[in-house]
Amino acid sequence: MTNQQRIVAVIGGGQCNQEEAELAEEVGRELARRGAILMCGGLGGVMEAACRGANSEGGTTIGILPGESRQAANPYVQIPIVTGMGYARNVAVVKSAQAVIAIAGSYGTLTEIGHALQSGIPVIGLNTWSLSRKGQPDNSIIPAQSPAEAVDKALSLAID
Amino acid sequence: MTNQQRIVAVIGGGQCNQEEAELAEEVGRELARRGAILMCGGLGGVMEAACRGANSEGGTTIGILPGESRQAANPYVQIPIVTGMGYARNVAVVKSAQAVIAIAGSYGTLTEIGHALQSGIPVIGLNTWSLSRKGQPDNSIIPAQSPAEAVDKALSLAID
Amino acid sequence: MTNQQRIVAVIGGGQCNQEEAELAEEVGRELARRGAILMCGGLGGVMEAACRGANSEGGTTIGILPGESRQAANPYVQIPIVTGMGYARNVAVVKSAQAVIAIAGSYGTLTEIGHALQSGIPVIGLNTWSLSRKGQPDNSIIPAQSPAEAVDKALSLAID
Amino acid sequence: MTNQQRIVAVIGGGQCNQEEAELAEEVGRELARRGAILMCGGLGGVMEAACRGANSEGGTTIGILPGESRQAANPYVQIPIVTGMGYARNVAVVKSAQAVIAIAGSYGTLTEIGHALQSGIPVIGLNTWSLSRKGQPDNSIIPAQSPAEAVDKALSLAID
Repeated sequence: MTNQQRIVAVIGGGQCNQEEAELAEEVGRELARRGAILMCGGLGGVMEAACRGANSEGGTTIGILPGESRQAANPYVQIPIVTGMGYARNVAVVKSAQAVIAIAGSYGTLTEIGHALQSGIPVIGLNTWSLSRKGQPDNSIIPAQSPAEAVDKALSLAID
Repeated sequence: MTNQQRIVAVIGGGQCNQEEAELAEEVGRELARRGAILMCGGLGGVMEAACRGANSEGGTTIGILPGESRQAANPYVQIPIVTGMGYARNVAVVKSAQAVIAIAGSYGTLTEIGHALQSGIPVIGLNTWSLSRKGQPDNSIIPAQSPAEAVDKALSLAID
Repeated sequence: MTNQQRIVAVIGGGQCNQEEAELAEEVGRELARRGAILMCGGLGGVMEAACRGANSEGGTTIGILPGESRQAANPYVQIPIVTGMGYARNVAVVKSAQAVIAIAGSYGTLTEIGHALQSGIPVIGLNTWSLSRKGQPDNSIIPAQSPAEAVDKALSLAID
Repeated sequence: MTNQQRIVAVIGGGQCNQEEAELAEEVGRELARRGAILMCGGLGGVMEAACRGANSEGGTTIGILPGESRQAANPYVQIPIVTGMGYARNVAVVKSAQAVIAIAGSYGTLTEIGHALQSGIPVIGLNTWSLSRKGQPDNSIIPAQSPAEAVDKALSLAID
């Protein structure tokens, strides 16, 4: 492991359907194949599927947990970060990444998208939120049609 | 002041145009006339205009600041809360409120909308973000056409 | 209420004995008589006793809560701030104050003493922690023998 | 790397003298030799020396940073966690560890000791703070006379 490894956050619901889990798992696999570290919120759903995928390809996974216990991490998190800060940990999930891939997701994912965009961190979207502001589309979320395209875009747009 | 006073957060950009400032100021005045405490992020733009309005009608204003110093509060904040937690303070701004009024705003406002909706706190919107999820409109942000309507809705929908 | 009111934090255990509760209640009363706003962590024990004292003299009380619900506040908190950030809220309790009065207390109180001293906020102690560093006494906690003395010192040493 | 690796936090000043740096560096080396992951606040002084030591023995280092930028991490941090939460990040530094080794340090270190003890995480001290409460010694900080002894105690007392 070196300081030069890219860190990419995968965000999405703590519960998800089968299609979303497959997208997330493939994103995790592809990140690992490309040598990137997977950052996430450490819980179930999209987070767990992405970690499982990364693990299967020998990648490194980090989960920044909202609660007080590392035991809450999904079994594919290698490095659990325990914050005890609830949803404020969403800020750290995205700020710790050089790019973010959002897969579906609910309001928690929306907060992470907002925190990333506010910090100038690129957000790639797979079937996730879309935004309009004062009646005008905001196209800051960069769409991708497949996990491979999402990872390509994340790694090519990653900030330093 | 009693424990029964409603607390309503006003969220929006730290910079805003004249029209948005007028909306915010009137929201602040109307909240004060109705006896509600105004919660906000304590800085400029929409936050300052709302606090100025509340002050002019004798209302109470609280600003939850991101930085290390109370001196960063706008001059109409009566009770500055100093967090030193940066944008993680956005979580506390909305969780401390029983309803939220969003006026225009950028990505920081979007995070606050997300944190509020995630917590089940009603969000009233004045010319602000609109959302779609997986291609379907999400109508969780309740639209208002005027400051008075926004305050009416905020107070009638406020959670306990 | 004006921006010029002093804000003093009272910190101590969420559970306390009768003697500590009496100290805290008198500190709360004295702060209110002197026109200061009482900041605290919003829960029971020393926090509740101090708020009860302040309330009895018509003072203003603010509680910065660790959890997700304003209902966790003691009944004498007038303005509950809901953070959902667990013990990270301890940082905001002391940073929001211009001086801190520590009454007895356990490890949570110790963290608040540390955060205050790190921020240059004076800490007055009533039967609380004492500190040594590398074998040398650290006298940064200013001792007081009575609630009145503690409040006197807090208000005279309060930072801007 | 596996989920079974122990995680030990090394805490201490962002600035330190030569003797403290040598202690920290040897603690870092010893943790790496024993297969533990080094958690720290990511900055200079004791944190940097410990990371340098761990790196020299092929260990893994994580730095939980207070600011907005990964560039603030010392050059021996392999995995920078960016919180933007200022000193509130101290909570996560210790909660993410299964044991804590405190080396000298100032008030920031004191807050970390307090947060760890509050969470039931063992704290081993090398020439650091000592505590008394209400006039009685509090012996919760477990003394060590050498880096090797500190690491021994940390790993044998580490919680799950």
